[in-house]
Amino acid sequence: MLRNSKIVLHSRPHGLPVRDNFSLVSDGIPIPMEGQVLVRIDLISLDPAMRGWMNEGTTYISGVGLGEVMRAFSAGQVVESKHPAFKKGDWVSGLLGVQAYSCLSGDYLSPLDLSLVPLEEHLGVLGMPGMTAYFGLLERGKPEQGNTLLVLGASGIVGMTVGQIGRIMGCRVIGTAGSLEKGQFLKEICGFDEVILYKTEKMSERLREYCPGGVDILFDNVGGSALDSGLAALARGSRVVICGAISQYNESSFSGPRNYMKIVTARATMSGIIVFDFQSRYPEAISTISQWLKEGKLITRSDIYEGLENFPGTLNKLFKGENFGKLLLRVNHD
Amino acid sequence: MLRNSKIVLHSRPHGLPVRDNFSLVSDGIPIPMEGQVLVRIDLISLDPAMRGWMNEGTTYISGVGLGEVMRAFSAGQVVESKHPAFKKGDWVSGLLGVQAYSCLSGDYLSPLDLSLVPLEEHLGVLGMPGMTAYFGLLERGKPEQGNTLLVLGASGIVGMTVGQIGRIMGCRVIGTAGSLEKGQFLKEICGFDEVILYKTEKMSERLREYCPGGVDILFDNVGGSALDSGLAALARGSRVVICGAISQYNESSFSGPRNYMKIVTARATMSGIIVFDFQSRYPEAISTISQWLKEGKLITRSDIYEGLENFPGTLNKLFKGENFGKLLLRVNHD
Repeated sequence: MLRNSKIVLHSRPHGLPVRDNFSLVSDGIPIPMEGQVLVRIDLISLDPAMRGWMNEGTTYISGVGLGEVMRAFSAGQVVESKHPAFKKGDWVSGLLGVQAYSCLSGDYLSPLDLSLVPLEEHLGVLGMPGMTAYFGLLERGKPEQGNTLLVLGASGIVGMTVGQIGRIMGCRVIGTAGSLEKGQFLKEICGFDEVILYKTEKMSERLREYCPGGVDILFDNVGGSALDSGLAALARGSRVVICGAISQYNESSFSGPRNYMKIVTARATMSGIIVFDFQSRYPEAISTISQWLKEGKLITRSDIYEGLENFPGTLNKLFKGENFGKLLLRVNHD
Repeated sequence: MLRNSKIVLHSRPHGLPVRDNFSLVSDGIPIPMEGQVLVRIDLISLDPAMRGWMNEGTTYISGVGLGEVMRAFSAGQVVESKHPAFKKGDWVSGLLGVQAYSCLSGDYLSPLDLSLVPLEEHLGVLGMPGMTAYFGLLERGKPEQGNTLLVLGASGIVGMTVGQIGRIMGCRVIGTAGSLEKGQFLKEICGFDEVILYKTEKMSERLREYCPGGVDILFDNVGGSALDSGLAALARGSRVVICGAISQYNESSFSGPRNYMKIVTARATMSGIIVFDFQSRYPEAISTISQWLKEGKLITRSDIYEGLENFPGTLNKLFKGENFGKLLLRVNHD
């Protein structure tokens, strides 16, 4: 008889999540009730936002309770459906959690068209990261032809997508990355104009060299000193889009941007992107991004690891800068 | 024969400016050349921005050079004019410096109408602080009837004016102040709905009590932990207007707002106000504010000290929270 395996939040992490913060629990597989769908999960999206979900309290979404399955955006195949919109064999995504099977209301599921792109890309460039990049850049960054766009954290899926959409919109694009290999990929494959290798190069010097007229759009996934360097380089009338602060999520004391007064002197505006606000417009973004993928204008990259038991070590690759593209965990169903 | 007295920047302050950073120099009075005007200065405006002007480098305006007269916005009476727009006896204001006499091109002077308001108010509510309050709140804060407005640093001239303009626009207004006397003035005379005495009360608790629906407009002159408390209280779709960061100007390490991610989760925007950007619209603001003063809808307050030799001790009242209304230094011409 089939059993479910699930990763349960056991205690709240201080700093980087460790194995002891979670339990791998074996459980029965629930039987779907009217309106519900049972999904066999194949791929789990590992995102920086998950670190925030492990904390107590509520921000834009409430924290995961102790003893609850760790929240995650995942994708898989319908095993049994009691919802009219889905049938056995359909591919779907949703907040299915870090587990092997999920049983939930079909109202919370999105159907996936695997003829469009492979499954992993539905969780990446056509999933939340892609939507975040698309609406964050277009709606908050408001790119104009000839603008200089600086993407902090460009080798993650959001950053690499933002940079390429910026390039398509006619921006000059500069990104930051942690290794030569990532830098080469961004320049040679994704068409970034310049990449700053933040571990070995001096950000402020490279920014002066690469952005002599200043930065018109600063898209930030990183926070901390990277954000400060970016702020210092702002051009007049620039837009700062805060998407995340991956450098700070595991710090005991969250650091704010020391250079925030540059927003005043540069006549800049700072705002953020919460992707759920654009839910009604996902179809527009999916159709546009799919077209760009088909035309080869947009390149994407997945970074897939195996086994529920390797959460949270795999998640931590995000915080150590070890991921390269969309980070995913594949569930082994043997 | 008349002599000029002037305060010259002698060395750059670290932390709070001290007497040794300045020299009081006696000098001859220049004779105006074609196009120039000689002004006998009566009142010198002391503003938080002056601390930034003492630093090396350029922000929105270059720093004062060592050996140069300290920059200040001042007002006085024309002694001799070789500019067609001004004649002896006219009252004028401009960047006249911390000195007894100033000789400069008449193009940089503004005429003052003393029948409108007394001289000190031309440097306050009708001067740069008033313009900052007016355009900062209306153009950046975008107040709407029923909004909750939080003014950090409300007993300064900018803060008390922002709060009252907010009240006129139909906002519920909460301010922070450092003493009971200031708090009473803001509530009883200026019509603030609530005042938080930040030295003795817990900001976060008072904000929960006074702003149960959150803060729609956060107008910040203070920075540091006050700004963090304000950010934590933001309502959805709120506007953060950064005007200054008086708590930070004398710190060796400028602190950024740790709670800046609240801008993201609250779907807020942060921007700043540089008053010079609205120069062409000063007449509109002066006419509106004058009308409010006449109708008693807007109350203002000046805090006047005497003697060039008491700069920078008097300026430091701003950084110690000891000023109450528009801080001014009167030049003694004996």
